[in-house]
Amino acid sequence: MAKGLFITLEGSEGSGKSTQIEVIKNYLLSRGHKVECVREPGGTPIAEDIRALLKEIREDDRLCDKAELLLMYAARAQLVQTFIKPKLESGIDIICDRHDLSTIAYQGGGRQMNMADIDALRQVVLGSFRPDLTILLDLDVKVGMARARNRGTLDRFEVSKIDFFERVRQAYLDFAKAHEDYVKVISAEDPIETVSQNILKLLEKY
Amino acid sequence: MAKGLFITLEGSEGSGKSTQIEVIKNYLLSRGHKVECVREPGGTPIAEDIRALLKEIREDDRLCDKAELLLMYAARAQLVQTFIKPKLESGIDIICDRHDLSTIAYQGGGRQMNMADIDALRQVVLGSFRPDLTILLDLDVKVGMARARNRGTLDRFEVSKIDFFERVRQAYLDFAKAHEDYVKVISAEDPIETVSQNILKLLEKY
Repeated sequence: MAKGLFITLEGSEGSGKSTQIEVIKNYLLSRGHKVECVREPGGTPIAEDIRALLKEIREDDRLCDKAELLLMYAARAQLVQTFIKPKLESGIDIICDRHDLSTIAYQGGGRQMNMADIDALRQVVLGSFRPDLTILLDLDVKVGMARARNRGTLDRFEVSKIDFFERVRQAYLDFAKAHEDYVKVISAEDPIETVSQNILKLLEKY
Repeated sequence: MAKGLFITLEGSEGSGKSTQIEVIKNYLLSRGHKVECVREPGGTPIAEDIRALLKEIREDDRLCDKAELLLMYAARAQLVQTFIKPKLESGIDIICDRHDLSTIAYQGGGRQMNMADIDALRQVVLGSFRPDLTILLDLDVKVGMARARNRGTLDRFEVSKIDFFERVRQAYLDFAKAHEDYVKVISAEDPIETVSQNILKLLEKY
């Protein structure tokens, strides 16, 4: 049996990942694929518990940077090992809302955590495992923040300054440039329908 | 101000760590030290939440080895960064019930997880940070298991076979031999009072 495709969606808040995941899912289903969607951090019961720890803002204890990175990779290890890899092996496509590149962009770029630490953790957790295709929905930081504000959902990763999001975007684009073979940049500033069409064109070529 | 001492207690279930921690604490207090005791995994609100995740046996999701290691080190990072290091800097002695050596003995030795992964995570989380003194309470595996059974507290790390605990003990002793400068082995098979006296003799020399 052919292995499933592992596709990840990346991009800032307000880039429209959720909408486009549905578009990709429906496209793959229409081609006769089996498809499952997950999100990071999370995607299994234990990984969702870890996600809750990551999102919680506590009065009595402030999560330190290294603990945050380790929790992030603990959730990723659990998801990849117990869900993504077995599904791919059984021929099911996986579409994942954020994956390793989000850690590089947000913790590495945005928060300026130690990239050597991130690289070491990736090596332990993922080794050479990587997506078949990563779609990076790129948009101007001010446009993205305005969209996120309109949705009214700001959490601890979102309550930050504009220069933070500029660093996130730059880290995303730098990584995409260095990994053109599987990371494809799609502008998310166009109307949703245009973004969807551009993604479908990409998938057809792929 | 002089930096505090960082003392860790290690040993299998039933080796009497809790009792001896009290003995060490009282000794240090009697010498005019300030002392605080913590346990691993745990010791801060977030680290205790991570401990709960590690201890939980779930029907719907089985924690994979790598996620377990990462959670263990996430709790350790949070404890060392936000509690142990600041306390030591302010001149307070810390006595810790289990620390990094437990991961080497239980996950590395007992569970036979990849030691290169453990080394990589230690490097990210601890770098060259290590205890001033580690007291390893060593005892015959069958004696230790009988004591633990009598206490009636068996959790997912304890519900295992005798060869598991033999590997744990061997990993402990191997590490102690390779790090004689700060890891001291005390027999825990003697009566509690004798063990305490041997520990106090060690502390006086130290």
